[in-house]
Amino acid sequence: MTSTLVHEKNQQASDLLKELDLDAWIIWVRETKQMADPVLSLILGKDVVWQSALIFTKKGQRVAIVGNLDVDGIIPLGIFDEVIPYTQSIRDVLRKKLDSLKPKKIGLNFSRDDVAADGLTFGMYNLLAEYLEGTPYAKCFVSAESLLMRLRGQKTPEEIKRIKRAINITELIFEEAREFLQVGQSELEIQRFFHRRIMEHGVTFAWGADHNPAVNAGPNKQFAHAGPTENKTKKGHLLHFDFGVRSQGYCSDLQRMFFFGNPKNIPEEVLTAFETVRDAIQGAAQFIKPGVRGHEVDSLARSFVLERGYDEYQHALGHQLGQESHDGGTLLGPLWDRYGSSPKGLIESGNVFTLELYVTTQNYGQVSLEENILVTKEGCRFLSTPQTELICLG
Amino acid sequence: MTSTLVHEKNQQASDLLKELDLDAWIIWVRETKQMADPVLSLILGKDVVWQSALIFTKKGQRVAIVGNLDVDGIIPLGIFDEVIPYTQSIRDVLRKKLDSLKPKKIGLNFSRDDVAADGLTFGMYNLLAEYLEGTPYAKCFVSAESLLMRLRGQKTPEEIKRIKRAINITELIFEEAREFLQVGQSELEIQRFFHRRIMEHGVTFAWGADHNPAVNAGPNKQFAHAGPTENKTKKGHLLHFDFGVRSQGYCSDLQRMFFFGNPKNIPEEVLTAFETVRDAIQGAAQFIKPGVRGHEVDSLARSFVLERGYDEYQHALGHQLGQESHDGGTLLGPLWDRYGSSPKGLIESGNVFTLELYVTTQNYGQVSLEENILVTKEGCRFLSTPQTELICLG
Repeated sequence: MTSTLVHEKNQQASDLLKELDLDAWIIWVRETKQMADPVLSLILGKDVVWQSALIFTKKGQRVAIVGNLDVDGIIPLGIFDEVIPYTQSIRDVLRKKLDSLKPKKIGLNFSRDDVAADGLTFGMYNLLAEYLEGTPYAKCFVSAESLLMRLRGQKTPEEIKRIKRAINITELIFEEAREFLQVGQSELEIQRFFHRRIMEHGVTFAWGADHNPAVNAGPNKQFAHAGPTENKTKKGHLLHFDFGVRSQGYCSDLQRMFFFGNPKNIPEEVLTAFETVRDAIQGAAQFIKPGVRGHEVDSLARSFVLERGYDEYQHALGHQLGQESHDGGTLLGPLWDRYGSSPKGLIESGNVFTLELYVTTQNYGQVSLEENILVTKEGCRFLSTPQTELICLG
Repeated sequence: MTSTLVHEKNQQASDLLKELDLDAWIIWVRETKQMADPVLSLILGKDVVWQSALIFTKKGQRVAIVGNLDVDGIIPLGIFDEVIPYTQSIRDVLRKKLDSLKPKKIGLNFSRDDVAADGLTFGMYNLLAEYLEGTPYAKCFVSAESLLMRLRGQKTPEEIKRIKRAINITELIFEEAREFLQVGQSELEIQRFFHRRIMEHGVTFAWGADHNPAVNAGPNKQFAHAGPTENKTKKGHLLHFDFGVRSQGYCSDLQRMFFFGNPKNIPEEVLTAFETVRDAIQGAAQFIKPGVRGHEVDSLARSFVLERGYDEYQHALGHQLGQESHDGGTLLGPLWDRYGSSPKGLIESGNVFTLELYVTTQNYGQVSLEENILVTKEGCRFLSTPQTELICLG
């Protein structure tokens, strides 16, 4: 019944609990259709209605305590050694189960900096504290952040397959766009073409359809999370896309640059800018490997761009990619306050990152690219086919 | 730009703040695409990325403090008197703004019993406490539950219009099903028909597609949140549906009973069961009005069923309906532990409820109906067209 994905992630969770100093991890949720802990789509792949405790222990036990109407949906998943139903109140069943497991350190899903590790609501936290009042367990809560960051960040084979598929479809649509694109089209018109292709390929949007793809024609726009306008493509101008799809629950996120005109007519300053961006990404890809910290990778690309005489890009070099286009965890970003502790995280094998940056030219606006890579044991490999030169049209 | 809906809900929030003893209400969120406080789709209708504080005061002020990249999306909404951007950290801007507002009681979105009022995560609560440490405001937090329950529960004209539309489409699909349904079809086959109709009407599912509609053919199934099977429809048997669609963000939720055979051949025990359910719903509808408590309405229907010699139904008589098919707030339920305090809530004008119950026959399984009503100043009116007799097919 259950997907390969959920089984892989459950195995990984059990393995991580052994590695980390946590006796038990409790996913404590209710009515998850309305307010879902982001880890549930990795670990359970379905919703629960009543208050539910999904307990994972260091010793490898997996116990679900769920409402009696939820039981029939949980047992067939084959994830849990024990599925304990309750009808009136979960309180006593939960206390009894903890008495038999006797955990000294219980991880809960809360986090200061990582939204993907912060699925426990304040009301639910209070309720758990109330249920366990007077037991030793009420004093055992710690953040399960490090478990969640690894669980989400270390992609399994099935997850990599799904991300790769999303990337392939994205690249296919960019190929299809070459036939469609011409001088005199508006950004809005071009976006509609991409939306039709998304539908025809049976996938959905990695982020909001209003700015997916972001389409930037000509030199007068700042690239941001803004939607397309009536701006029109023009001979001798650049055309930029930031585009990602979601396929089988997993996202791609790519930026591509097109040029309207003959390759021989690309202005020198555009060529230099393009090569700078491309080479900064390649440099980062050659440098990245497990054990390096996020900000070290960002710093390398940032220095490269500055040495070439450009202003530095005003964002992080890369974020993780998975069920979300911004998948949380370690960030390839500078040590700026607004990024909290995420650029300090260690890069791990199995992480999937974007590598993206822009530089600004004098007369042709911004030049920006984005690739997707998988961190391997020795370094990384590209999941996207890196753009090595401007795609010339017409 | 902004929808009528969001403006109506903002006006309502400002009015409710005056009514309730709250100086300020803060919606404190981040990365809402991944983890959304359920109130945001009522109040903002869009996502924010960085840590954001949406502040509403008793005096009617509305202030948004948001990341600089989010500002351009928030200003055009026309909701906030003031939109304050920040780049590095929200901490000082927030403290300064609170110093000027000087609230003594600050409502936050956490709740023990109502998932729709529990949108604040534990990590975000801790972060807010950290940012405000040493200020008087860190000691002013209270649950905004009563505000949120009313805001969500008191439907505005636009919300009622949308719910009514969802109900109309649901009823239309039931009509269309009369042409399709016949003896010998499996529950799965019937569900696929409903799914096609949902798509053709351009609406989506009020709850998970796997058990929407729930389809129950024949006498041998317990109605629960279970999916359809290879069970086949049969002459002389009942067919039951629990079905809801989502249209423009709002849900319907109806149960209907069909009978395969001539109306004259309906067994007496089925007729009696049907009339009991139908009349219990009518009785509840005649009784319900603003100021009555949820459990009092449930109790009336429950006693009626018991007096008629049936076992009592093992769920609540009714839940609210809105952006979710289980929309939180006051419940028309018995005073059972598992429902917490929600059946004790007061019914208000503008609430939309389901009225639903089943009885069990000796030989034909369960008979169950569900209608949708709007509470008015004097009583209630049906938003669905109540089913008054079994729909006979073939």
